[in-house]
Amino acid sequence: MRMYDLINKKKNKGELSKEEIEFIVEGFTKGDIPDYQMSAFLMAVCLNKLSHEETAYLTIAMANSGEQLDLSKIHGVKVDKHSTGGVGDKTSLILSPMVASLGIPVAKMSGRGLGHTGGTIDKLESIPSFSTELNSEQFVDNINRIKMAIVGQSANLAPADKKIYALRDVTATVDNMSLIASSIMSKKLASGADVIVLDVKTGSGAFMKKYEDSLALAKEMVQIGTLAGKPTYAIITDMNQPLGRAVGNALEVKEAIETLYGHGPEDLLEVSVILASYMLLGAGKVKSADEGRELLLETIKNKSALDKMAEFVRAQGGDSEFVYNPELLKLASIRYDVKSPFDGYVSEILTDEIGMASLVLGGGRATKDSKIDLSVGIIINKKLGDKVSKNETLATLYASDDEKRKEAKKRLINAYVISKDKPKRPPYIYSVVTKDGVKEI
Amino acid sequence: MRMYDLINKKKNKGELSKEEIEFIVEGFTKGDIPDYQMSAFLMAVCLNKLSHEETAYLTIAMANSGEQLDLSKIHGVKVDKHSTGGVGDKTSLILSPMVASLGIPVAKMSGRGLGHTGGTIDKLESIPSFSTELNSEQFVDNINRIKMAIVGQSANLAPADKKIYALRDVTATVDNMSLIASSIMSKKLASGADVIVLDVKTGSGAFMKKYEDSLALAKEMVQIGTLAGKPTYAIITDMNQPLGRAVGNALEVKEAIETLYGHGPEDLLEVSVILASYMLLGAGKVKSADEGRELLLETIKNKSALDKMAEFVRAQGGDSEFVYNPELLKLASIRYDVKSPFDGYVSEILTDEIGMASLVLGGGRATKDSKIDLSVGIIINKKLGDKVSKNETLATLYASDDEKRKEAKKRLINAYVISKDKPKRPPYIYSVVTKDGVKEI
Repeated sequence: MRMYDLINKKKNKGELSKEEIEFIVEGFTKGDIPDYQMSAFLMAVCLNKLSHEETAYLTIAMANSGEQLDLSKIHGVKVDKHSTGGVGDKTSLILSPMVASLGIPVAKMSGRGLGHTGGTIDKLESIPSFSTELNSEQFVDNINRIKMAIVGQSANLAPADKKIYALRDVTATVDNMSLIASSIMSKKLASGADVIVLDVKTGSGAFMKKYEDSLALAKEMVQIGTLAGKPTYAIITDMNQPLGRAVGNALEVKEAIETLYGHGPEDLLEVSVILASYMLLGAGKVKSADEGRELLLETIKNKSALDKMAEFVRAQGGDSEFVYNPELLKLASIRYDVKSPFDGYVSEILTDEIGMASLVLGGGRATKDSKIDLSVGIIINKKLGDKVSKNETLATLYASDDEKRKEAKKRLINAYVISKDKPKRPPYIYSVVTKDGVKEI
Repeated sequence: MRMYDLINKKKNKGELSKEEIEFIVEGFTKGDIPDYQMSAFLMAVCLNKLSHEETAYLTIAMANSGEQLDLSKIHGVKVDKHSTGGVGDKTSLILSPMVASLGIPVAKMSGRGLGHTGGTIDKLESIPSFSTELNSEQFVDNINRIKMAIVGQSANLAPADKKIYALRDVTATVDNMSLIASSIMSKKLASGADVIVLDVKTGSGAFMKKYEDSLALAKEMVQIGTLAGKPTYAIITDMNQPLGRAVGNALEVKEAIETLYGHGPEDLLEVSVILASYMLLGAGKVKSADEGRELLLETIKNKSALDKMAEFVRAQGGDSEFVYNPELLKLASIRYDVKSPFDGYVSEILTDEIGMASLVLGGGRATKDSKIDLSVGIIINKKLGDKVSKNETLATLYASDDEKRKEAKKRLINAYVISKDKPKRPPYIYSVVTKDGVKEI
């Protein structure tokens, strides 16, 4: 087999076999296929597309390119949840204890945040002495004992994806649905879960701004999961504004705990619950998502999810006092209310800009090596469709540095569009994609 | 300007400006743009095409990427002829002395042969002590004095083309008309001629097997020449069989001289004359190609072209005795007649295979570093449409080695298709492409 012929085949709209795709992924990962051939191939893929089968073969080959986590020592059906990334997205911190409290194991490998979206690992570290570094024995033990563990991703998962992504990033071959879907799914397949629930965000703060694109991505990922033999569900949820009200690490943990107490924002609760309900469905705990919803709301009401959160924090070296008294979490000392310049309604929020405002305050990473300040962030006071008077507070900044506060304020003002007419509020959830099709919510 | 954005623009079917194309060519030639970005760009070009303007900008930028020959010291209008390559194509050796004998300067830089097509430089070296290495002063002097010089290409012409071609060759991005045309024309523009006549071959021994492709290439090259401000003509000529009867270096020189004597094959004379007639037209020597034809045929009749050839050979260190007595040229000692296995008509000749047979005999280069044997080759006895009896000679091999002779014989037998029905003979010349359009011949 020669890479030249495979490039040529895709250039001529041919369909590649499983063996041909494995040859490409293995050859490129090992360094036998040079960058310049791979980038020509990737451009041909962008312009001539991959079929669903080719996309699945690519994903599986990438998943097989490095370590694969073996979760076989964990009892029960292992369900993983993955989000395509958004601003204020702290659903993992809410749905994990809910699902775990119902006896379903939650074995989560999370990443750190990069760019304007935060990472679950960073958020959890705002709880003093909490550790996200467990060895694999501790990880398995904790899950078997308390049904829940969240650790940083340390294994060399899907190195092919890492190498291919780096090349796509510099050759304008990022925006192809098959390549995006296979990049996400290769890591999910390699991390060993039995069932995969995907939170595909759509809107101004999401990777996919348009609903049709989010739907296409969701379908592609569900196809891949299905072809790889793993039950996969994708929920398309709104990201036209931050989820909940808190943006920033400690602020988000605090809001997640308040949600477990039953005092959280409705959008955050609803999105967490629907994702969790499909985790329960996938695990065989319930017969329908609706049945799951009832069970899950009960874990809030009876505080079992809150207690699970406390147990989890303790098990990973943290003090559960922070769960029961989240106001103990350290927040930045400078508090600054950003006021509305006009009367009107919030008709649009440039959510990316809110994320950037948080990054500017020090709460996110501009590059992999940036240090982040866990105590800073933003509390959103006015959300889409809200009436606002001139000089009323749109959002409150939590800053450690007045210069950064000033820049964040500018971004925040720019992020809000205030109009005369009352706009429609976006839904929290758009649709659910399963192997059987799309269900509008 | 960033290469990323330019790749992305072409990927999205955008049209690149002159400045953007210059940025790409200069950046890649200098090494500022890495191979992997260039190959992604080239694949986007193959799939989304370049406009005529983009193709012209690309060609001019490549022509400007290295040395440019300055022929300004040569008196008169400098006309260059270029062939896309074929088997038995020795027209340069015939038309150059014809045109020069009419007072029009022929300043030719020629390449060596590679693959199954021979190079003019190699052919000329079968004349003992003939030198194709003149310094630029000698080159200019010779042309001003006797109107003709042919030298090997030593200058660093269009290095961007060399570098881009090497990358295309390994990334399946060869077969795009704009890239093929710009590769040829960049070297022609850099070599300083005022007028360019192109011999675009079509058929089984040509780079372009199909007439429509040859026509498209011819049009693209004429467009480029015109946009670059150089009068350019393309003649589409037949390559469904070797041109003339001789294939191989010394054999071809002998046939060229016989043609100057007036005893050459008709196809070879006709193709040489039409190319030369457009050279005269481009140089302003005649008002029409037909007028040129009359003048040119006269140079054969009155032996002025033959004398010019002798003068040229002397001027470059050779002995003109070989021109007046071409049977003195050294030919290989093994002569072997390949016989027809059937009665019938020659209905098809796989011309590439004839070229390969010559290469196998030692007359061509498999790689750049191959040594070639100037004395070997093939004389074609039966051409398309000829009646042939069983055991009649199809062609005669001139070999220096019996093993090679055997392999060449096999290829030759494979190259001939003999059928019962008398086929139509292909024309010698199909059409002429000028800036004003296509004229069928």
